[in-house]
Amino acid sequence: MCDLVIGFDADDTLWHNETLFSLTQQRFQQLLEPYRQQTWTGQELFETEIRNLDYFGYGIKGFTLSMIETAIEVTNGQVAARDIQQIVDFAKEMLRAPVQLIEQAADVVATLAQTHTLMLITKGDLFDQESKIAQSGLAEYFTHVEIVRDKTPEVYQALLARHGLAPAHFVMVGNSVKSDILPVVEIGGKAVHIPYHITWEHETITQPGARMGYVEIEHIGQLPAYIEQLRGMR
Amino acid sequence: MCDLVIGFDADDTLWHNETLFSLTQQRFQQLLEPYRQQTWTGQELFETEIRNLDYFGYGIKGFTLSMIETAIEVTNGQVAARDIQQIVDFAKEMLRAPVQLIEQAADVVATLAQTHTLMLITKGDLFDQESKIAQSGLAEYFTHVEIVRDKTPEVYQALLARHGLAPAHFVMVGNSVKSDILPVVEIGGKAVHIPYHITWEHETITQPGARMGYVEIEHIGQLPAYIEQLRGMR
Repeated sequence: MCDLVIGFDADDTLWHNETLFSLTQQRFQQLLEPYRQQTWTGQELFETEIRNLDYFGYGIKGFTLSMIETAIEVTNGQVAARDIQQIVDFAKEMLRAPVQLIEQAADVVATLAQTHTLMLITKGDLFDQESKIAQSGLAEYFTHVEIVRDKTPEVYQALLARHGLAPAHFVMVGNSVKSDILPVVEIGGKAVHIPYHITWEHETITQPGARMGYVEIEHIGQLPAYIEQLRGMR
Repeated sequence: MCDLVIGFDADDTLWHNETLFSLTQQRFQQLLEPYRQQTWTGQELFETEIRNLDYFGYGIKGFTLSMIETAIEVTNGQVAARDIQQIVDFAKEMLRAPVQLIEQAADVVATLAQTHTLMLITKGDLFDQESKIAQSGLAEYFTHVEIVRDKTPEVYQALLARHGLAPAHFVMVGNSVKSDILPVVEIGGKAVHIPYHITWEHETITQPGARMGYVEIEHIGQLPAYIEQLRGMR
């Protein structure tokens, strides 16, 4: 066993997630189309989400409450109750949507679990995330599953300390530069960025020179070769 | 150090919680009063909550989505958008409500932490629970904080196994017979029931002879004496 511990983000790294939010947002915009005179940009919903983040955190339930608030706001209180119920039903559909694994994710996780300790590190709603982990069929490969409130350098630091793990022995794999990569690099860990084709606006960053101290690969299938390389370098 | 580990429930054991839900439910009923002809019993909201538990789990956000759904249902879709917004605002007020510790809880926890390993074991929304734990000022006394999806015998068993703890060395303290007491007794642990003056209907049980294998005390101030007694018996 190599002493490198690999942390995996879950949403949009192991399984599709943002597509579900994105599709729901499209349905939400269609639902409100009849009420609106001006063009709908989706910006209003994003602004409500950000404003509510301190109250609701990440996850489907908070997203839904923000959709309801936005619907009331952008229709000047004209939105019908049946359309609000439709938004609540969107939430239920999202919460019941089957987990769709990203191509090659299952194979890569199973392979790496043979030689490394794997951790799943995800933020969001506990109830929702636990359902998805159970449903994914990947739970058995992860020695530790950590559902965290947010992914800051402090949170990673506390988490590694709790497991008695030096940052230099830790590599984080994820799709969000803001949540999975930069905070880990900041505390002295390694990180592998695998971009997902959609990134929630809140997770995007524009930081010149940010790609210092981590690598970017195109898809998860390339991960084992990179990990092998990392082992050779140590 | 005694090798007895003490698990504490949080909501309605260390701080007040159900009072907040109960007060919000009263405000919710008042809000809908103008729409209703028949007498309002509150039963409709409870039924919606139970029906939605598999989707939303426990916590304020799920409760709020259930209030919204109930409002639409019991008004036959007549509820105004501004009243739905009021319900979303109830959620925000609940999420921002200061943590109110139960009398003597802080002293008892500080005292017991000197001689025992303490665990905080709570269910509900991760984001919300972490805020409350941080705000309570009690976090430092707990060696482990476990936020779980639900409190079943299997969940307790897995949790104790993860900490390498035999059930016989574990005592759980809480207000819910259903969630804090019976599942722990079932797996061979000890349990101390401290009733809270309100119990959410879903947490009540009517099970004759259920009070086998655990003790009931009147308030948390009586806990240290009981723990002392338990140590003497071992």
